[in-house]
Amino acid sequence: MYLHGGDVYSHPNMIDFSANINFLGAPKSVVEAAKSAMDGICHYPQADCKRLRQAIASLEQTQAGQVVCGNGAAEVIFSLALAEKPKKAMVFAPTFQEYEQALRSVGCEVVYETLREGYGFQIREIPKKLDPTIDMLFLCNPNNPTGTLTRQDLLRRLLFQCEQNGILLVVDECFFDFVEQKEKNQSMKRYLKASKLLFIVKAFTKTFAIPGLRLGYGLCNNPQILERMHAVTQPWNVSVPAQEAGIAAAGEPLFLEKTRQAVTREKQFLLEQLSIFLPRGEDRGNLEKRSVQGSLESSQFFIELYGHAANFIFFRSIPKLDQELMRYKILIRNCSNFPGLSEGWYRIAVRTREENKKLIACLKQIKEEIEKNEI
Amino acid sequence: MYLHGGDVYSHPNMIDFSANINFLGAPKSVVEAAKSAMDGICHYPQADCKRLRQAIASLEQTQAGQVVCGNGAAEVIFSLALAEKPKKAMVFAPTFQEYEQALRSVGCEVVYETLREGYGFQIREIPKKLDPTIDMLFLCNPNNPTGTLTRQDLLRRLLFQCEQNGILLVVDECFFDFVEQKEKNQSMKRYLKASKLLFIVKAFTKTFAIPGLRLGYGLCNNPQILERMHAVTQPWNVSVPAQEAGIAAAGEPLFLEKTRQAVTREKQFLLEQLSIFLPRGEDRGNLEKRSVQGSLESSQFFIELYGHAANFIFFRSIPKLDQELMRYKILIRNCSNFPGLSEGWYRIAVRTREENKKLIACLKQIKEEIEKNEI
Repeated sequence: MYLHGGDVYSHPNMIDFSANINFLGAPKSVVEAAKSAMDGICHYPQADCKRLRQAIASLEQTQAGQVVCGNGAAEVIFSLALAEKPKKAMVFAPTFQEYEQALRSVGCEVVYETLREGYGFQIREIPKKLDPTIDMLFLCNPNNPTGTLTRQDLLRRLLFQCEQNGILLVVDECFFDFVEQKEKNQSMKRYLKASKLLFIVKAFTKTFAIPGLRLGYGLCNNPQILERMHAVTQPWNVSVPAQEAGIAAAGEPLFLEKTRQAVTREKQFLLEQLSIFLPRGEDRGNLEKRSVQGSLESSQFFIELYGHAANFIFFRSIPKLDQELMRYKILIRNCSNFPGLSEGWYRIAVRTREENKKLIACLKQIKEEIEKNEI
Repeated sequence: MYLHGGDVYSHPNMIDFSANINFLGAPKSVVEAAKSAMDGICHYPQADCKRLRQAIASLEQTQAGQVVCGNGAAEVIFSLALAEKPKKAMVFAPTFQEYEQALRSVGCEVVYETLREGYGFQIREIPKKLDPTIDMLFLCNPNNPTGTLTRQDLLRRLLFQCEQNGILLVVDECFFDFVEQKEKNQSMKRYLKASKLLFIVKAFTKTFAIPGLRLGYGLCNNPQILERMHAVTQPWNVSVPAQEAGIAAAGEPLFLEKTRQAVTREKQFLLEQLSIFLPRGEDRGNLEKRSVQGSLESSQFFIELYGHAANFIFFRSIPKLDQELMRYKILIRNCSNFPGLSEGWYRIAVRTREENKKLIACLKQIKEEIEKNEI
């Protein structure tokens, strides 16, 4: 069984709502840079990603010495775990599963802090188990797959608590650039100067729509951590086309603004359209029971909306909705294999208006079929 | 200081003899495949490299289940170390430095077996320290940077010794496809069926001239090892263009034959031309002393040839020859930073006839200059 989104290889010619990629696609300059880089693949990549780190530093308004590049954000996470070799770490659940995989690769004990459905999977308080026995805390903001954004004051208090207890706080902001820019939504970057125990993970993968090229990076103001990561990572980890695409992407800050506007607009459309499937008030209490039953026939069709701070929407619906949609050549992410979730939880990316309309139309048909069967 | 070959980024417009890449360049089909793959970079790579592993299995005449792919051979080596977490491992010196880096990344004790200059850096016997306290042995065949090929009977006895002592034998055959095909030169692949303690590392990097794309692989008949590697590696480690280029490369077995012929021909030319710089018999005893002195003026120019079983030639010459050649826009690999080597050791790749002639002409000029200064 393929445990990730984006399995377009087993399912060709489908509309892929299962991977959270910017639906605008990569800017032309990025694609062109990657293509031109093909002339350079007879050379090893630059071992220290010097030009790329400078470009990223300029985009992120930091210094090249605080940037570490990786073969996707996933490699940055694995290298960090290998460099720091934490004994005990905390992750929220549900969240991106590669934190746990990376931690376990170095034999680290993983403590879960379960996010509660009743709170919409929001982090509401400092975890009680966040004591000095913990070496590292992973936090994804906005969180994948739940789409929740953690409150600013809580983030600040979390960082303070980590500082007090000598815990490295790893904040994954891979989806942060999709978030509407408001005063209350700010990147943790602003604490980099003040903290040696903050590590921010980002990527061009999602925002610049180049997951196939693999390009992620970390921002950290602790030279010792970066040196240790360097020591445990192969010298040529970022390919020539990925480095060139990244340099081009870093030169397109306005593309991020364009992306935020387009994603916000299409997300609004999708949310409005999806709201017609919201369960009626009197049904809500029975939702969990019914989705556990696992039978289509016995359920009324519904979609219950959860977090959507980034470019994807997290929701609960009938069991096997992903399989139903496959009949219509639509791929969505079944999230039942995330620790903390069960059958009936799904994630869809926000896509183009046309594709979003197609999705809504298919959902309507599925709803009709089910309700017909029930009569 | 840049510690690797192939630093074409700091030294643009130079002829690069410092990286051991097939001078024929990548076959057209491979470049085309990588370019076409640019249309697919908006998708994540296939997480299990299924198609690529099948293609490699076909090229290597093994099964897809025995193939593991990586972001260059370097990643395969790091993943293997992380998966197996050896406590104590043996590496020969000098050799490819990333074995040691990978081993140290998991806190492994590294025991060196020094290859002796007097034996031309050949492995001549089973290392005495290869006892059951060793968990892993790395062997590069042909060895980088010394260019030596280990004898068949010794390899067989080494594997037997490893089997007896429960040691995983890792044979890096990244340069093996450049070796002339003779009865006495055979890949360790033929022991894969018989041994669960054999792991072979290979790459398309050098043979198919795509180091910038990053694509290596491992061959192993031990499902437990492969599963443990899988568990400690991110799901999307091989990019879309690398996977597509690899599939195309695996479909070009005749290119390897063409490569062997071209490399053998040009290597022969280079060796003949370089032989005019060989030190006279009476001088040989003083070579080491003189190269240690580190001064150009006091040395007669010489080149003493060592191993050249693959597509590169290992030799000793005057100190700072690499800097002298840079004046002529030629980049060669100064090997003084390899454990077991010192100033005066160099490695050059075999390149095109025109480039090889240019190198020889420049060496002649350097020789003249030095001898003029001595008068």
